[in-house]
Formats: sequence, C-alpha cells, structure tokens
Amino acid sequence: MKLVQADLLHRQIALVLAAWGMDKDQVETTARVMVDTDLRGVDSHGISMVPVYAEWLKRGWLKLPAPITVVSETPAIAVVDAAHGLGHAPSVKAMELAIAKAKSIGLAAAAVRNSTHYGAAGYYPRLAAAAGLMGWCVTNGQSKWVLPTFGAEPRFGTNPIAFAAPAKAQPPFVLDMATTTVAVGKIRNAAIERRAIPEGWATDAKGAPTTDAETAYNGGTATPLGGTPERSSHKGYGLAIMVEILSSLLSGGTACPLSPRVTPDGHALDNGHFMLVVDPKAFRPEGGFPGELDQLMTSLRQTRPIDPKQPVLVAGDKEEKSAKERAKAGIPVPPGLLAEVKKSCEAAGAQFLLG
Amino acid sequence: MKLVQADLLHRQIALVLAAWGMDKDQVETTARVMVDTDLRGVDSHGISMVPVYAEWLKRGWLKLPAPITVVSETPAIAVVDAAHGLGHAPSVKAMELAIAKAKSIGLAAAAVRNSTHYGAAGYYPRLAAAAGLMGWCVTNGQSKWVLPTFGAEPRFGTNPIAFAAPAKAQPPFVLDMATTTVAVGKIRNAAIERRAIPEGWATDAKGAPTTDAETAYNGGTATPLGGTPERSSHKGYGLAIMVEILSSLLSGGTACPLSPRVTPDGHALDNGHFMLVVDPKAFRPEGGFPGELDQLMTSLRQTRPIDPKQPVLVAGDKEEKSAKERAKAGIPVPPGLLAEVKKSCEAAGAQFLLG
Repeated sequence: MKLVQADLLHRQIALVLAAWGMDKDQVETTARVMVDTDLRGVDSHGISMVPVYAEWLKRGWLKLPAPITVVSETPAIAVVDAAHGLGHAPSVKAMELAIAKAKSIGLAAAAVRNSTHYGAAGYYPRLAAAAGLMGWCVTNGQSKWVLPTFGAEPRFGTNPIAFAAPAKAQPPFVLDMATTTVAVGKIRNAAIERRAIPEGWATDAKGAPTTDAETAYNGGTATPLGGTPERSSHKGYGLAIMVEILSSLLSGGTACPLSPRVTPDGHALDNGHFMLVVDPKAFRPEGGFPGELDQLMTSLRQTRPIDPKQPVLVAGDKEEKSAKERAKAGIPVPPGLLAEVKKSCEAAGAQFLLG
Repeated sequence: MKLVQADLLHRQIALVLAAWGMDKDQVETTARVMVDTDLRGVDSHGISMVPVYAEWLKRGWLKLPAPITVVSETPAIAVVDAAHGLGHAPSVKAMELAIAKAKSIGLAAAAVRNSTHYGAAGYYPRLAAAAGLMGWCVTNGQSKWVLPTFGAEPRFGTNPIAFAAPAKAQPPFVLDMATTTVAVGKIRNAAIERRAIPEGWATDAKGAPTTDAETAYNGGTATPLGGTPERSSHKGYGLAIMVEILSSLLSGGTACPLSPRVTPDGHALDNGHFMLVVDPKAFRPEGGFPGELDQLMTSLRQTRPIDPKQPVLVAGDKEEKSAKERAKAGIPVPPGLLAEVKKSCEAAGAQFLLG
C-alpha cells in the first residue's frame, strides 16, 4: 500500500482537476476538500473519486468548467447554482455565505442547486464549527440504492446528514452519517472479499433481506437505518426523505425518486445541497456553549464501556484520530486505485505524480 | 375499551390542568396539544400522561403555575423560559414566534429552557407546515434510558426529532421519531405481555443485548437507532447527541448525561426544546415546493411493495389515518388508564367526566 503525503496528493488532484477544465478559482478549494476527506479516513470520498469523476465527465453527467453563480441572496438566505460541476467549491461558497450571515443575524441557510458530488458532507459544517458556529449540511444522492420500508425497489440514495458544533478545548462534535444502515462501499467490499454481511444491511433484488454480499451488491439494495421494519427502518427512511426534501425540492432540483433510475448519457446529474448555520451566542450571549460541549463529550467518553478495550467514542473522534495519523504517515492509496488514477491522469493529459 | 370523543377528552384534561393551578391562558393550548396527540394515535403522549404529570407535581419535578417568559428576542431568534411548567404551551409560543419571524426573513429559530415534558414532538413542526413553512423540533429526554455505542450504562433519553414540510393537496410530510430503535413503551408493553422482543431493541443492565423484555425493562436500556454496533447504532447515538446539544446546551439547560441519573424530589426537571422554521418561498419564490412534495409523496407510496397487502407509506400517513378514524369513533382509553385518570381527578379536586 503506497502512502502519499497530503501535500503531494493535493498537487496531484489539483493537476487532474485543472486538466479537466475546472475553473482555476475552484481547483484549490476542491483539492483541499478531497484531501481533507482522505486525511480523515473517509476513503470512499477523496482521491478514490477521481476515476469516478473521469467516467462521469465522459458520460456528460458532470460538466466542466462550471462557473458558480449566487442566484439569490437575502440577509438570511443564499441560493447558489453549481452549473453541473463538482459540488465541493459551490458548497464551500454556500457555507461561507451562510457563516457570514449567521454571524450577523444569528442563523442563516444556503441551498446549492444543479450540483453533482460534493465529497464528504461533514466538511461543510466543520467550516461553521471552525468559525465558532453550529453547522448542518445535507445532500441527496443520485444513485438509487435504498428502498422505502415495505418497498421492493430502491427509490433514493444514501442521503447523508452532517452536523458540527464548536467546542472550546477539544475538536468539534462532528456527525457525518448516511441515512442507510451502512455505506454501500461496505457491502461492495464484502462482495469483493466474498464475506457474508450481517442481516439487516441489505436486500436482494426483490427487497427480501439477504446476508449474501454479492446478491446485495449486484442488483440488490441497501436498507434505511434501522435495517428491517421491526427494527424501525421507517426512521432511516423518514430521515432520508427529510434530506431529499431539503436537498432537491427546496433548492429547485429534481427529487431522486422522481428521476429515472439511471441518468441517460449527456444529462447532467442533479444533486442539491442544503446548509444551515446557527450561532450559539445568539441564544447564549454569555458564551457558555463551547465549554459545556467539552464537558458533555468528555462525560460521554467516560461512560463505563462493555469492553475496556473499546472505549465509548463521540462523533468525530475516529476521523480526528485518522487525520492526525495520516498527516504524519501519509494517506494510503491501494495499488488498484493508484493504477486507475494514473489512467485518469493520462486520459486528461495531467502529469502523474504518484509513481 | 372506552371510546371518548375528542371534545369530551379536551374538557377532562382542561379541568385537571386548571385544578393543578396551571395558568388559565395555558390550559386550552395544553389540552389541545394532548388531545391532538391522542387523535393521531400516539397513545403514550396524550391523556396517558395525566397520571405521570400528577406524580411529577407531587415530587416537585414539575411546577405549576408556570408563567411563560420570552427571555430574549431578535428578528431571527427567540428564547422562551417555561418556568418548569409543562412544555406544551411555551413550545407553542416558541413555534409561533419562529413562524412569524420566518415569514418575515425566511427562517428563524426558537429555544425553550427550564421546561419539562411537551408531549409529542411532531405537533410543533405541524404548526409551521399549517402556515406553509417547514418546521423542526427536537427535545432532550430526562429519563436515562439509552446507552452510547460501546457503553454499558444509559446516559441520555430517547431524544426525538420531528420535521414537517407543507404539501399542496395532501397532508404535510410529518416525521416524528425517537432516536432509539423503538420507543421504551414498546419494550414495556412486551414485558407486561411476557413477549420476547427482537434482538437489537434493548440490552440488559450490563449493556449486553437481550431479547427478554422484562430484563430489558427492569434495569436494562434501550438501544440507539441501528440497534447494535455492527448495524450502526453509532448513528442513532450521534443523532441523539445532536438533539442533546440543540436542546440543552443551546438553550442554556443541563445536558442529560451531566445530570444525576434520577432527579431528586423537589428539583424540577430541566428539559430544553429547539425549534427551527424555514420558508420554502425564500428559496423558491415561484412557489413550486408544495406541489412537488405532493408528487414526491405520491411517487413513494406507489413504490412496488414486497407484500401487496402492506403498501409503502410516507411519514405521517399512519397518524393522519388515525386522526380521521378517531375523530369519528372516539379515542380509546383502556380501563387501567381510566381508573388512574379518575384518581388524578380526585386528588386534584377536578370533576371526572369520563365515567
């Protein structure tokens, strides 16, 4: 497994993005978001997306260049159009607008329309937390992987929810979760390794529960969080539709369940994103919020564990640990991915730096 | 099973609340919220709470009268103090403030501090939906029932999330869910009936999974949504802490994990609530949002079902059906509860109307 230092990975991603024709002012931002994701151990959403984006460009699902437009703006709200480019830079723009507005009036929201993939949802609320504010971000998926409770066919994506809140001495609380039981990547990995998966993760093509990863990955579906009706999969399903409403209907995009199962070549993907920022000081001018969040998180970590070797964690702990480790040791890039990135570089006419 | 018409139940609840010394202007609102909850089939949060509230009053966990104060207010934000009374009326006040503000600037939020129980969370966002707006409401619980993933002791309550969005021709989308796998009431009911519960619902006193309802209910815990670590209970746990942060830390209350396991007699409960309202027209002035939500919900209901006898539902469908049926047939009040309500009436010096 090759270990690549973050700054080299950044340069490599930036070269590819520029070669694809991305607007210059978006290249650095996009590379920064993608490398940050890899640093935090979310391997499914960083450098590993380069070959996927290359394929999308070829199909016309993703357009570059894609100038970012602020469509409308009030003291409390902004709507940003991503022109069917990658979602990272327009989402940073939207979150920055929401942060500035929330600092002024206490809370603000921003929507991004006509977007595609924006990487890991957790990046954007962390920008708010870094500014001392709470942030949310949700996005709808475009790959129909998930079925409604009692349904036999997938209708929506893994529709993640991310939330971050600022602490005082500690890193922020950062929740970043798909509204499915597990990420589709976990089912895929089990299929590749021919491992069985736990009951409740996935179904076969008819919507019946399966523990066979290959059956699930090839034509099956992922379950909403909860897993089965008796374990309240309607809750994961309900959260996913809440995310869908905020991401697509509110921004003026098309809801995933109302779009075709596979996007035709030449038609751009149509993801929407929604961000919200709230200033704790607007509620508590005395400023006690961040210090109490430290206390709350410390107290949760001190919960008596079932197994002393596995202490209780708080959302964001795992990613924070990964970021520290990988900043030193480098980011692992497996050989298969390395070969694919090389191919993407060659096809785009970008120098390959990871040889 | 006695069937009680909604207006009679309203009068009964109002008599008890008034006899307890509740401020006159809060009695009608509180009774309305409680009866609405019973109409919608959420039997755990309406009339069945009367004997519970009576016990809390006796212990000093709940104070009446409890004048509502708006502690601070800006064009975007309100903070309401509930003076340790019941949470229904101050929460309606907070939501009404947020609705008025959101109509003016596009979005707004309100927090309620020093509150206790406020019934079913879904009532409050439905007020926003009735005004053509989207609403959220969350609250922290005060009964430590739920353990963090990998933990062996319960640290927080069932911390529900509610969200409603306005449709055009259809009732709104209404999600109202505890962040646990199932409500504690379901475990209690199984214990009473000596039925086994599915794996993943609950644990014993040491945090180990159990399917024995009595073991779970007497000293055990409820699991965060997901149920077990391998089925991503860290997601339900993460959502619950997000709710905790918004409800207690933001409003200036005490986070449940930082308070004693059992509230001492004489000390009021310390629940906090958080509400958010967003106007879809602030993002889409052309007004396409509600009609598209109709389409989205219809399309989801038309998903091919696994079993044709169990069609796919949308969040809120079950409660809407119950409300229609119970408005005609009346609200079922089981004999045990009826006897307890009678006792509460007698103790408070209120007339018993349900004989």
